[in-house]
Amino acid sequence: MRVLGIDPGTRHLGYGLVEDRQGDFFAEDFGCLDFPPSLPIEQRLYQVYTHIANMIGMFSPQEVAIEQPFLGEGSRQFVGPALAVGQAQAAVLIAAAGSNIPVFRYSPAQVKAAVADHGAASKEQVQAMVKMALSLDDSPQALDATDALAIALCHLRQRDAQAALSRRADPG
Amino acid sequence: MRVLGIDPGTRHLGYGLVEDRQGDFFAEDFGCLDFPPSLPIEQRLYQVYTHIANMIGMFSPQEVAIEQPFLGEGSRQFVGPALAVGQAQAAVLIAAAGSNIPVFRYSPAQVKAAVADHGAASKEQVQAMVKMALSLDDSPQALDATDALAIALCHLRQRDAQAALSRRADPG
Repeated sequence: MRVLGIDPGTRHLGYGLVEDRQGDFFAEDFGCLDFPPSLPIEQRLYQVYTHIANMIGMFSPQEVAIEQPFLGEGSRQFVGPALAVGQAQAAVLIAAAGSNIPVFRYSPAQVKAAVADHGAASKEQVQAMVKMALSLDDSPQALDATDALAIALCHLRQRDAQAALSRRADPG
Repeated sequence: MRVLGIDPGTRHLGYGLVEDRQGDFFAEDFGCLDFPPSLPIEQRLYQVYTHIANMIGMFSPQEVAIEQPFLGEGSRQFVGPALAVGQAQAAVLIAAAGSNIPVFRYSPAQVKAAVADHGAASKEQVQAMVKMALSLDDSPQALDATDALAIALCHLRQRDAQAALSRRADPG
């Protein structure tokens, strides 16, 4: 099972491809794309879309996992950033839907809880746990790349937990 | 000059193609696409993207105009709807950028002011003015189609006004 984790943004976009081989996790590719803020937003969104579509073509992930801050319908927050996050997510969602790859969304707290055991873990704790879980010699240079790997890991662990639950419910 | 006006949404999307022939405006195509809310959001965004990309291929507009509620970086509003509006806009922006068509954004108040002479015009006033400006026998059935035509008209009038200003500044 190969999962492409994405930390979406229209300035920086982290990506991380993680493969689960019988319960061992391997980071196959990861990095952070930067989009110059001088480019018009439609150009940056188009670049997000084409990069993700290309990565899906190159890596053939079976599933995509993205981080989605929990934004309840009724929550009042600053709207500008929400709009930008929504637009970057949309570009990723369109690329995934165009390739028929299912997308799974996790909140930042869910990702932290899955990777570092509690939802309020610091950036440094997440970084250390990602490095350990994937047996990396070094952490990725960009924090957004680490976050993308954490999102992929979170999704793979979620899948494992659900598979274990179904086995228990139906011991065959 | 042909302009594709779009009132973006992930539930309903209005579109209207308006041609300016020496100062006379003609509605060449318009309508409202509906996306079933039972579809996952990524599927609806992908449909918005492909419909708009197809329309650009079919109609060859020179420019695209979309409605964009004014959302200042610091304005606090309900975030859920802003996220949905941002995602639908993103799908349109990506389709336009992929075809190298410039996109112009107008706030609802700008559209109303351009079409019905004041920014607080009612839906009915906008509908009546759009029908008159485009010499339509009937108003479009869907309000979102009327809005899309109004957005295209707003952009064409804005262009005319700017062209007149440049002529005055440089009488040749």
